[in-house]
Amino acid sequence: MDLQSITGPSFLKELNHEQLELLSEDIRRFLIENLSKTGGHIGPNLGVVELTIALHRVFNSPDDKLIWDVGHQSYVHKILTGRAGQFDSLRQFKGLCGFPKRNESEHDVWETGHSSTSLSAAMGMAAARDIKKDSNYVIPIIGDGALTGGMAFEALNHIGHAQTDMTVILNDNEMSIAPNVGALHSVLGRMRTANKYNKVKDDLEYLLKKVPAVGGKLASTAERVKDSLKYLVVSGMFFEELGFTYLGPIDGHDLEELEDNLQYAKKTKGPVLLHVITKKGKGYLPAEQDKIGTWHGIGPYKMETGDLVKSSSSGAPSWSGLIAETTRKLARSDERIVAITPAMPVGSKLEGFASEFPERMFDVGIAEQHATTMAAGLATQGMKPFLAIYSTFLQRAYDQVVHDVCRQNLNVFIGIDRSGLVGADGETHQGVFDIAFLRHLPNMVLMMPKDENEGQHMVKTAIDYDGGPIALRYPRGNGLGVAMDNELKAIPIGSWEVLTEGKDAVILTFGTTIPMALKAAQQLSEEGIQAEVVNARFIKPMDEEMLESIFGRGVPVITIEEAVVQGGFGSAVLEYAHDNGHHHSVIDRMGIPDLFIEHGDVAELMDEIHLNSDEVVRRVKLHVQQDAKQQERSNVL
Amino acid sequence: MDLQSITGPSFLKELNHEQLELLSEDIRRFLIENLSKTGGHIGPNLGVVELTIALHRVFNSPDDKLIWDVGHQSYVHKILTGRAGQFDSLRQFKGLCGFPKRNESEHDVWETGHSSTSLSAAMGMAAARDIKKDSNYVIPIIGDGALTGGMAFEALNHIGHAQTDMTVILNDNEMSIAPNVGALHSVLGRMRTANKYNKVKDDLEYLLKKVPAVGGKLASTAERVKDSLKYLVVSGMFFEELGFTYLGPIDGHDLEELEDNLQYAKKTKGPVLLHVITKKGKGYLPAEQDKIGTWHGIGPYKMETGDLVKSSSSGAPSWSGLIAETTRKLARSDERIVAITPAMPVGSKLEGFASEFPERMFDVGIAEQHATTMAAGLATQGMKPFLAIYSTFLQRAYDQVVHDVCRQNLNVFIGIDRSGLVGADGETHQGVFDIAFLRHLPNMVLMMPKDENEGQHMVKTAIDYDGGPIALRYPRGNGLGVAMDNELKAIPIGSWEVLTEGKDAVILTFGTTIPMALKAAQQLSEEGIQAEVVNARFIKPMDEEMLESIFGRGVPVITIEEAVVQGGFGSAVLEYAHDNGHHHSVIDRMGIPDLFIEHGDVAELMDEIHLNSDEVVRRVKLHVQQDAKQQERSNVL
Repeated sequence: MDLQSITGPSFLKELNHEQLELLSEDIRRFLIENLSKTGGHIGPNLGVVELTIALHRVFNSPDDKLIWDVGHQSYVHKILTGRAGQFDSLRQFKGLCGFPKRNESEHDVWETGHSSTSLSAAMGMAAARDIKKDSNYVIPIIGDGALTGGMAFEALNHIGHAQTDMTVILNDNEMSIAPNVGALHSVLGRMRTANKYNKVKDDLEYLLKKVPAVGGKLASTAERVKDSLKYLVVSGMFFEELGFTYLGPIDGHDLEELEDNLQYAKKTKGPVLLHVITKKGKGYLPAEQDKIGTWHGIGPYKMETGDLVKSSSSGAPSWSGLIAETTRKLARSDERIVAITPAMPVGSKLEGFASEFPERMFDVGIAEQHATTMAAGLATQGMKPFLAIYSTFLQRAYDQVVHDVCRQNLNVFIGIDRSGLVGADGETHQGVFDIAFLRHLPNMVLMMPKDENEGQHMVKTAIDYDGGPIALRYPRGNGLGVAMDNELKAIPIGSWEVLTEGKDAVILTFGTTIPMALKAAQQLSEEGIQAEVVNARFIKPMDEEMLESIFGRGVPVITIEEAVVQGGFGSAVLEYAHDNGHHHSVIDRMGIPDLFIEHGDVAELMDEIHLNSDEVVRRVKLHVQQDAKQQERSNVL
Repeated sequence: MDLQSITGPSFLKELNHEQLELLSEDIRRFLIENLSKTGGHIGPNLGVVELTIALHRVFNSPDDKLIWDVGHQSYVHKILTGRAGQFDSLRQFKGLCGFPKRNESEHDVWETGHSSTSLSAAMGMAAARDIKKDSNYVIPIIGDGALTGGMAFEALNHIGHAQTDMTVILNDNEMSIAPNVGALHSVLGRMRTANKYNKVKDDLEYLLKKVPAVGGKLASTAERVKDSLKYLVVSGMFFEELGFTYLGPIDGHDLEELEDNLQYAKKTKGPVLLHVITKKGKGYLPAEQDKIGTWHGIGPYKMETGDLVKSSSSGAPSWSGLIAETTRKLARSDERIVAITPAMPVGSKLEGFASEFPERMFDVGIAEQHATTMAAGLATQGMKPFLAIYSTFLQRAYDQVVHDVCRQNLNVFIGIDRSGLVGADGETHQGVFDIAFLRHLPNMVLMMPKDENEGQHMVKTAIDYDGGPIALRYPRGNGLGVAMDNELKAIPIGSWEVLTEGKDAVILTFGTTIPMALKAAQQLSEEGIQAEVVNARFIKPMDEEMLESIFGRGVPVITIEEAVVQGGFGSAVLEYAHDNGHHHSVIDRMGIPDLFIEHGDVAELMDEIHLNSDEVVRRVKLHVQQDAKQQERSNVL
């Protein structure tokens, strides 16, 4: 059928089984074709085609609340709720969001991006329903990977206790972004092969019938055995123990089985967990055969072969790869070095480290809190943990960074991956808060390199440093393609570097915005204004000697950062100036304004918020001119 | 024995059973007597006397690592490791810390304060041991309440999977700070009464013997039944499922049983969970009989009767009580209002709300992440959740505040309890980061009242506000005893208030530091300097009209906050000035410096960091004089 003609999910209820199978095929074809052009989270969505159809047939969205954990598996839901026509703009600026978005559709009742929030949201929505004496259903859909996030367990603990009506769909595909790890994963594995225990139940009943009918001890024994039968028959006893009715495991690609079980769950009082087994990438061979997560989220590809359409790359190393591989190199001669990742061994490019040092590599699952405090524990024993976490996910370990790492002043090396704007993943994934949430922490050292050569030296800096926590920010994507030094050398903590001299103004910046500053300086120079550009590579501590020299000159200072401007690096510069008697300095801060930044191409987003070289030029000129006028007035007086 | 003569735990190994019993008595008497003078966490410590003795007999601290989760139960450990002589200074400035502290003793291998970190720390220490091929033991001691914190589950999931050698002590006293809630609590309850299942095992074996010896189906059945016996006999199957060997439950006050089981755990490969049942307050009747947590942590008391020695109180309402009770009052006519607490119904004074609106009150256990996102879920359905969380514990929900509350711009009313310095609990509990970690978040409104009358109006403000998240900070302790208005009225968002006029300087401050500013203004006035004091009750958004007027006057501005000065309110004022062309303003920020602030009396701590009225006076005078000199120089030119 023409998917673009769908305006809402109600038509589904009119279709027969055959039509539904055809629809599934159409949706798969649509996804494979469209995502080959735009890229996107193809694997997760191909896995939930039947599940999403069944959910929209059994429940009435938006009265019934479908809550997609993480949310990158909501494409089928978007198609069925009337958004097929927008898939050519998927994850592009002003286009369809890759995650549920409340302003896109009334069917998107909860926005996600980060993992493991759906059960808490569901508990909130169900509690509201019960207080208001409404009768709608609440259905969180959570993956087996997301279930390892601690907050999911906090919610299970509460929901099971409160016996709140809801149907939790456990979408079990045995991998999230990478293959899942952890004891819970084994628990689920045992559930998947649970037929053994159902057989035992049959056998036991047979056995009990064989026992001679006698009174006394034996009769009560038989009674007690019956009492405890549930512990034999329940394959999902982990969830039963927590107060859930466990159903499953069922085939997530069998529409009838799905509907039957959803209907049963709907009628069951209290919380139900329906264990659905799906196959990631189902129906597209390259994605089905993926074992490491390549097809989880992907760029454009050739539909026929599954070959990736490479974007015209500089050939420069990826930032994640550079930092991970430099750490690996140093680990060869430094046995203190271990690496920790919360479920991102591929994203953080730690496969090489893992294969060379398997006993010094820890993939802890989606568990940023545990990862961070475990790193602190390692550091107390003289180890040097390299904790690689995406900026946006480090938010979840803020308390552990404060309370366990910084407060105990432990030698943890935090690699803040995907710092700055990340582009297509949008609002939930922009790495723009880390400076503001780390800068105020005592003992923290925070730095960002100007290019990959400085990046490798900063890894050396972090490994050599034994004064406490040290964090290295690096962006998504690739380096600049600069020449790499053979020998690694530590950079003095807190030292900045002048990149271009200039007498009229000073631009302080670091990392990804350095090219912007240099371009602006070039343009200014052509207009007769000489702006000094400083590589302020240490965000904390700052280069106080250089700051004294800069403020001593009395020229305007512009700060630039690809991070929230409130409480950020520029504010640190303001604080320094006012704490040290330079009250009269002109300091102008550029950065991310007080807004959540949506998805889109990073350059486009930067233009949208006026974080570009034109704006740098405009501001420098403005201040230099004002300065000149001020000077004139002084001279006249 | 004389506990002050103890220099370390090795003497324990020489004592016989009778001597150990006497020692337990001595320790209990010592604790009851000493804490009656200093106050402290008496309940938790009386509960772990035998457990701590047994641990130090079976293991060799500090080679073996005892990791006390939360840590307020470490007093017995402190006595046995040579610190009895310092108990008269417990929780006092420069005195013995109420939590493990690495600089106090080599036996304090890990510092705690916040809950649920011990298992992650243990995993880090055990991983370091295994990499270094050492052979020491790692023993985290965690309460049943702390186990509900999500990061504890993240760690269980990892440890169970990795099969790392360690002995987890589950100290189960059925309550943490308040009675525990949640499904896990029920799981533990079933384990406590697990004899039933052991009986079933006996019965089944008896039954199997009765079955006629036949081949074929029945024989294999018997075999299968044996295979699955473990699911009948294991009372701790929740933990067994996660890969732990479960031992217990055992009597935590029976030294021999404790030692036998610890010895057994020590010999067992892989992770072991030893379930120990203890009684909080054991051996001191008033504490034993406590059902709601009064004797968890307490001030000085009369030893004979257990009557509390009331500190000379103003009779003013406690801040927690004021905010909770005002919310309760408004809830009578506003059905949208619900209250959520992460295990602090008593601390946050929500008992009244709970008894009046049981169906609108949610105690979710130690689960700040879930609490926050559940509040967001409630808000999506038009409810108005009041989320009461201590400032220091809100740190653990930073990502949920960013990603779920602020990003979706939901009407969640966050009550930030215990904001500012909290005193005796020290470093881990000071509520000094919240302004810096909330101020940079889009959509956030943040306010703090000058007194309890303004406090009640701010509750009304928060309930009336429907523009998104709004947070109300309030300190530990009691209000000022001011007169209370009968009618509640909302305060315009972002409006400040001039408290005293003055032409020479402006002091911007809010909440607890207002009296300090007023006192300084009084003193300055006596010296002929007129300082204006402004109640900057909205930290975000600020009163821009008033800021324009202030900066227009060109007088020095001093900001004061009982919070970290980096990225705090004062920085917001700096940012405003520089973003709006007031580059030449003299702005001087006072607040908490870039250090973790230890335990002690709040006034003493404030003096130590020069956050007092003398310093305000000194700074204002300095700037006013400099200003005058500058003026003179201008006049001369």
